[in-house]
Parts: sequence; C-alpha cells; structure tokens
Amino acid sequence: MSITKTPWLLTVSLPPPSLQNNIADADRLITALKTALQTDEAIHIDFDLLKILPDRLRKSDFSLRCILFKDRLGWRVIGIESDGDVRPAAGLAVDLGTSRVALRLLDLADGRTLAESGFDNPQLAVGPDILSRIHFTETSGGLARLNDLILGGLNRAIAAVCQAGGIETGNIYALALAGNTAMTHLFLGLNPRWIIREPYIPVINKPEVLKAAELGLQVNPLARILVFPNIGSYFGGDLIAGILFAGLHTAADTAILVDVGTNAEVVLGNANWMIACAGAAGPALEGGVTKMGMMAGPGVVDKMAIDPTNHAFALHSIEDKAPVGICGSGVIDLAAQLFLTGMVDIRGKLVPAVCGERLREIDGLMHLVVVPADQSATGADLTVSQAELDSLIRSKAAMYTILETLAMSVGMQLKELTTFYVAGTFGSFINPRSAITIGMLPDLPLDRYRPLGNSSLEGAARALASTESLAEIDRIRERITYLELNVNQDFMNRFSAAKFLPHTDTTLFPSISNQNIPHH
Amino acid sequence: MSITKTPWLLTVSLPPPSLQNNIADADRLITALKTALQTDEAIHIDFDLLKILPDRLRKSDFSLRCILFKDRLGWRVIGIESDGDVRPAAGLAVDLGTSRVALRLLDLADGRTLAESGFDNPQLAVGPDILSRIHFTETSGGLARLNDLILGGLNRAIAAVCQAGGIETGNIYALALAGNTAMTHLFLGLNPRWIIREPYIPVINKPEVLKAAELGLQVNPLARILVFPNIGSYFGGDLIAGILFAGLHTAADTAILVDVGTNAEVVLGNANWMIACAGAAGPALEGGVTKMGMMAGPGVVDKMAIDPTNHAFALHSIEDKAPVGICGSGVIDLAAQLFLTGMVDIRGKLVPAVCGERLREIDGLMHLVVVPADQSATGADLTVSQAELDSLIRSKAAMYTILETLAMSVGMQLKELTTFYVAGTFGSFINPRSAITIGMLPDLPLDRYRPLGNSSLEGAARALASTESLAEIDRIRERITYLELNVNQDFMNRFSAAKFLPHTDTTLFPSISNQNIPHH
Repeated sequence: MSITKTPWLLTVSLPPPSLQNNIADADRLITALKTALQTDEAIHIDFDLLKILPDRLRKSDFSLRCILFKDRLGWRVIGIESDGDVRPAAGLAVDLGTSRVALRLLDLADGRTLAESGFDNPQLAVGPDILSRIHFTETSGGLARLNDLILGGLNRAIAAVCQAGGIETGNIYALALAGNTAMTHLFLGLNPRWIIREPYIPVINKPEVLKAAELGLQVNPLARILVFPNIGSYFGGDLIAGILFAGLHTAADTAILVDVGTNAEVVLGNANWMIACAGAAGPALEGGVTKMGMMAGPGVVDKMAIDPTNHAFALHSIEDKAPVGICGSGVIDLAAQLFLTGMVDIRGKLVPAVCGERLREIDGLMHLVVVPADQSATGADLTVSQAELDSLIRSKAAMYTILETLAMSVGMQLKELTTFYVAGTFGSFINPRSAITIGMLPDLPLDRYRPLGNSSLEGAARALASTESLAEIDRIRERITYLELNVNQDFMNRFSAAKFLPHTDTTLFPSISNQNIPHH
Repeated sequence: MSITKTPWLLTVSLPPPSLQNNIADADRLITALKTALQTDEAIHIDFDLLKILPDRLRKSDFSLRCILFKDRLGWRVIGIESDGDVRPAAGLAVDLGTSRVALRLLDLADGRTLAESGFDNPQLAVGPDILSRIHFTETSGGLARLNDLILGGLNRAIAAVCQAGGIETGNIYALALAGNTAMTHLFLGLNPRWIIREPYIPVINKPEVLKAAELGLQVNPLARILVFPNIGSYFGGDLIAGILFAGLHTAADTAILVDVGTNAEVVLGNANWMIACAGAAGPALEGGVTKMGMMAGPGVVDKMAIDPTNHAFALHSIEDKAPVGICGSGVIDLAAQLFLTGMVDIRGKLVPAVCGERLREIDGLMHLVVVPADQSATGADLTVSQAELDSLIRSKAAMYTILETLAMSVGMQLKELTTFYVAGTFGSFINPRSAITIGMLPDLPLDRYRPLGNSSLEGAARALASTESLAEIDRIRERITYLELNVNQDFMNRFSAAKFLPHTDTTLFPSISNQNIPHH
C-alpha cells in the first residue's frame, strides 16, 4: 500500500476486494486509513460519502484522496476524491470581530495563504456594540436577524475570497472561527441574553464541531466548523486563539497577554500553568472616552508629541490628512506628553499656568485644545476635557490594577515578566513608552513588549495548520484558571494608588521617575 | 439534587447559577447528568437543543426531564422537556422485511407496547425479491425510488401507529431497525449493487447512529436511528437481532439459531463464542419450490397427515377454506408423510405401487395429486411433481449439511445441542417432527426446538429496552466468527449422504429409523 500523508489529506490505495478479503467498502477504507495514520483511534466516514463511496472506489481503481478532520470524538472522513484530483482542499480562518470580520483562505495541505479579506460586521447596522446587540436579541426575531446578518456577511465574503484565491467554495473543508463569547453565540444562533446579566451565564463554552450545512455556511456541506471555545462570558475564544498564536502555553518563561477593549482581558502563564482574568478598564484605552475619540482611519491622530520647551504640539494623523479626531494610541501619547511637560499634574489635572492659551472653559468645564479649529478638518477645535482626562486616568489605573492583581495572585511581580504580548490594533499602534509613562503598563524594557497584531485571526489560521489543533485548543482551555476579579478593599486600595501618574509608588516606574518631570 | 433515573429518561434538578457557580448552561446540565448517571463518559447535548436550553432551564426552575441516547461515541442529550411533562418518550422497533415490515411502538420508560402495526413492503411493486430490486437500482433513479418507497411506507405506518398508540410522532425519540443487508442498504439509500456480485461487498456493515431528520423519517428530528449491523452481504442485521432476542450470546449452553429463507442463515454458539454461516438452501423450504407453493394465507394448506393404512390425506388449510395451495410447513409435512407411508422411497422417489390412483403423468413427468380438483378452490388438481420433490430433497440436504458443517467446524455433534431456535414464520409453523422425519433438522428431542417468531422485530424491541443495547449489539457482532462455506469435496460428500430420507447414516436419526417404515 502506497501512502502519501499530510495532516489533512491522505491518499490511500486499497487492496481490491476478493473472496478472501470481502469486507465492506467502508471497512476497507477505514482499515487503510488506520494503517496510514498508524492509529487505533476511531475513524468515521461521513454518511453522505457512503452514498458515493462504492462508485468512487471502483472508478478510481481503489485509490482515493481523503480529506480528514479530527474532532473531539475521533477522525472523520469528510471528503473522498479521485487519487488524481489536484484541486486544493482549503481552510478558512475567521476572526469574528464585533466591529470587523477578517478572513484568511489557506491551503490545508501546506498552510499557504490563498487570499485574505475582511468586512465590517453587518451587525453594526443593529448596534455598535455587544450590549446593544444583545438587547436587540430580546426583540421578536432579533436573534435570527443578527444571526442572518453575520452569516450573510460571511457567505458573501467567502464567495469573494474563494474567487480571489481561485478555488470553488465547495473546496473549503474546514473553518476555524475565533470571537468573543457574545459574537460566538450570535454566530451560532444561541441566545446571548444571560451573558450580560449577573451571574453572567453563556449557553455554551465549548461548541461542538458542526458541519457547515448545519450552520448555513456556503462552503462544502461536510466542511467542519471549529469554533474556538470560551472560558466564560468575559473571556472569549478570540483570547484562546491569541494564546495559541503567541505560544504562551508552550513557553518555559512566564509571559502575559493583554487584549484591550471595553474590557481588559489578560492571561498570564507558561507551559505549566495559566491564569486569566477580565475586568472593565473602560473604553478610554480605545480612544472611546473622548468626544474627539474614534477608531483609526484617515485624518485620525494616532501619534503625538509635545515640545518640552515651547509646548508646541506635533501631531501625526493617518494618511497625513487634516485631523478629524484621535484614536487610542493618540490619547495615550497625549496623556503621557501632557504629564511629561507638566501640563497635567500627577493627578492628571490640567495645570492652567502651564497649559496657558490652550485652555478653554466650555459649559463650565476645563478643556484643552489639542487641534485648533484652523488646523482641524472639522473647522472646530478638537479638545479634551478634564472629565475625559479623569476618565482616562481611571481606565489606566484599572488596567494596571488588573495586571498587578493577576501577578500578585501567583506571587509574581510585573517586572519579572520577560514577554508582554499586546493583542489587536491597540497592541499594534500604542507606543509602549507612552503607556508606561502614564503607568498603564508596567515599566519593562521596551523590547519585552510584543504587538501580536490580529492574534484572533492568526490563532484561527494556526488552528488549521494541524489536525491536532483542536486537542491543543482544548488543552489550553482546560489549563487556564480563571480568576474572578474580586473588587474588595485591597483591590480598591491598589486602584487608588494607581490613579496617579505614573503611580503613587514611583519605585515601580524607575524609568519615568528618573526623568526630569516638572512639578507644580 | 433530586434524581429520577430510568434508562432513557432522566429528570435532573440543577443548582441555579450564581456568581460562585457561573458555568455555562450546557456545562451545568452535563455536570448534573454525569452525577445522575454516575459516569465519566462524554455527554453531548444536541446542538439544536442549545437553542432552547436557556429558556427551558429558566422557565422550569432549572429542573428538566432529559431524553438520552447512547451511541458509539458517548451519551447524547436528544430531548429536554419540562420536569412536569407527562407525554411518553416513545421508541419504535422495526423489522425491515423484504416482503413485510413490522412495527412496534413502545414506551421507552418501561418498555410497554403502545401499539403494533405492519405493512407489505412497498418495494414489492418494483420486485418481489432482493435480486430484482438490486437490479432495479442499476436503472436511472432506481435506488432513490426504492428508498422513497420504503421511507414512504414507514412514514405512513408511523403516523398510523402513533395515532393508535395515542402519541405524537414527535414523541418518538429512538428507532431500532433490523433487516437483511440489502434491505438495510435500500433503507439507508446506499448502493447495494456489489452485494450480489462476487466477491459480495456491502457498502457498510456497521451503520453509524443517524438522526431521523438525516434519513427523512417523520418522527422527532433528533430521534436516533439504530440500524442493526450486518456481518456481511449474506448475514444481516435481522440475524443479529435474532441472536439478541434469543440470548444466544449470553447462554452457558451452546445453542443454534436458524433462519430459513432463500438462504439458510445459521449461528451456533454460547456466551463464549459464536460461529455463523449462510448458504443457499433453495426456496423449497419456504414452499416456493412447488407450483402450488405459496405464502401462508386463507385456504393455504399448512399442515397435513396421511393415514398409514388407507393413505387418505387429512389436510388443514388456513381459516379452513377450500385449498388454494400449500406453504412451507405443509410441504414439509407432505414429504414426511409420503416417506412414512412408503409413498416415496428413501431417495424421495414416488412409488407407483403405493401412490396408486394419486399419480398422474403430466408433460411426461410424474405428479402426485395432493388435492383433487373437486376439493380444491381452484377447480383443478393441486399436485406436486417428482422434480419438485427432488428439489425439496436437495434443499433439505443442503440445510442439514450446512448445520452439520457448522457443528463440525467447532468439533461438535448436532445431537449435543440443548436448544435449537428456529426464526421467522418458518419457525412458527413447521412441525419439527416432520422436519426431522425428512432429515432436514437433526433428531433432537422435540422440546429442544424453540420457535422464535419474528425475532427480527423482537430483537429490535429488545434494543430499545436499554441504552446499553447498542454496545451489546456491537459485542455480538464482534464475537461472531463468520465461516465461509467452502463447498469442497467433503461438503459435497456430506451433502450426498444427506440426500436420502432421512439420511444415509440412519444412526443419526434413531427416532425415525426405529419406526416401522414400509420399504419397497
């Protein structure tokens, strides 16, 4: 028997039937696959394939190319093709983002990317965030509508990405999707209602592997759908994907992975243990706290500096367009620069003597002009208010306190971390130096900070690199200890201490404290 | 947690969620079921049920009645109902016969029969036997048509039997079907073409457990379909069902089970081993060999005797109607009585001096009048020809030789058997005394012969008595050694020796040889 073995595709030549060897066609194929895989594990042939098996076997001289998937119950034969079939068997990795969905089409045989694509989550038409969408599911037909929206968007994108990759949708045999717990529920059509209500109960944490046809995805009907499992309502499959991609679960050294959104989701660990928690850090860190805050896009300020001598603002906006607003990384730069130049004090309060003409009183509240009207694209001042700065301080303090609490729970100090992974666009764009300056992230050497990019998509793609990935993903999930953030007096004390720039305990931030920061 | 446990139904009360116990709804249910079942085996909840789980849990105060099925991969939750739901969860046992399909609706909770029904296999419209139907599958759309016919017949019968049993079709949660290998393929829509062609290859021997919706059966869409596995093309699931019902596989004493049709299918064994074979015994034993032969029905002669002194024929016909033909049990009685009265000799040849006026020469062939024209319902003589008697002798010789060969293969003698099970209508109607007289069945004390009735239906019903039955059925299948009947010189010698009445070796049939049989 000649065997060509790859993780997903296996070409087997079966001994033809004879009176001395007259086992059933299905048993003949399974026997050959067990030999080829050198396994005693159960192998099942999808029922629909049994309908074509006898003809295909005899027309291809008992030599078949099989497409396999390994789910939690064993091996599944999900495709049987003639030995000479050269069409690729494709996989599709999907980051199921609340705002944006990213897709990568790849060849299962070698992992090669065939095409990539992305689209704004069509559920944005119903609600910009998870909360508003979950409320919408409580209206009649709401859940079905949200489910239709995401499936429709996916099916359109799948058709386009297949065209770009030069394959038929029917050649997609495996999908891996990673998203937060609510998006996972909306994608599966499961009721997310109790996710957002105390005590925060999802319907499911570990979705079974389903067939594409069961979910209405327009790929090969027998294609298997691997949906990343969640830890709970506030620690989703996208984080598990991030861990898989970063390799946190296989490293000897302890590392931390942070994903920042409305919630800060954090996991700390190594090959031996992992501990995770999630906490409200506020939308400030994504730029959402300020009136001028927005997602990255043309004209959005993403980097800035303030001249320490003349307090001139040097702004960088995306595509160098006239400024329209500021995004998360810009806000953090702004706060750091205001602090370093003494324009805010260690409590984050604007210092009139230093800010000078940049201050405005609007509706009885102090505002700082970041971009004067004559330089902005809107024709109006782009400002940040004292209240908005206060909110940012609370968010950064929450972030730091969460990190500190998690480290303390395992008797570590944050400075011991050798690698600090920061996921998502936040990780790609923030200046770690600025984040350290305001005391949001710990004072580590900058080379220990590693942006992960779209780690949810990368983890999903990684899941399609091997038929053993699902088992690895489940092991990650089982290994994680989830720490319920207990907001007790200790936590509040640490939080209060973190509400200063960079921190009340300046020994925690030696690289900042040693700078010559003007004090008033 | 209060638990009411039955094999298929389990009522569990879950601890309600709290911040201290905020696992997912699915995990909460699975944890409770594992405790209730006292098992570490995997438990999966059908995906479709996850869509209703959160609401049903909260509306029923976290107390649910679950319907379970155990397939080869673990436990499946296939129904979740309110604790107070009193509708029965029903099972349906089906004997998938080539000619007739029999159904029994039962309550899964206690095995109580709710209703029974049967119908002629609608595939009879296409072909009376398996061979003609398989040829029909080779015409365009033929397989789909045969599949539609049996599914349509089943769905109509299911609707009717549910009405008779006072339940909704949606309350059927499990089906167990037993049939021969070809009927199993036609029911599943699998190509039976290679079953009848050397080297006789079925598509599958061990069908996976499917959902009713996947097969188009109109019961609960999540109902599980247990199709009895086959040993091979000529030893079908109906026989495995027979073994399950007879308990052959659990008995300390060695017993034999015989199912007689066009083929004789035989299994010999006990709790430690089983050996099986199948061989062509000819249609004679079902009555099909004679022109006057037919299936049991009104006016069909099923029993007869011949007065040893005056050779008067005493016939019994079904419902005491004027005779229209003779069925298998009648033919065997006839042959035995002809032999005992000396009307045929030990070679089965009609003896003119004894038969006297009952002999006719038709088309140059000797015939014996069984029912004269003036007593028959047809107005014509009902006769049996010498050629037909020769055919019967060959059939009975084949039957005996198969039994003898199987026993010899394990070093046993047939007289050692303590129980001889005879399946089907053949088993119910034949007079074992007559079968022994002609040397078709071994000369055992009559109380060792046990008719099994419709053992295929009874075995299917037995499969629904416990969630462990599928495992038991698989164990039966694995335990059976299938003996390919090697028609070699030894076999032919034994066959030749068996072509006498009762046998050349009269010491094998002491109860016959000791009678005063006239010899000519």
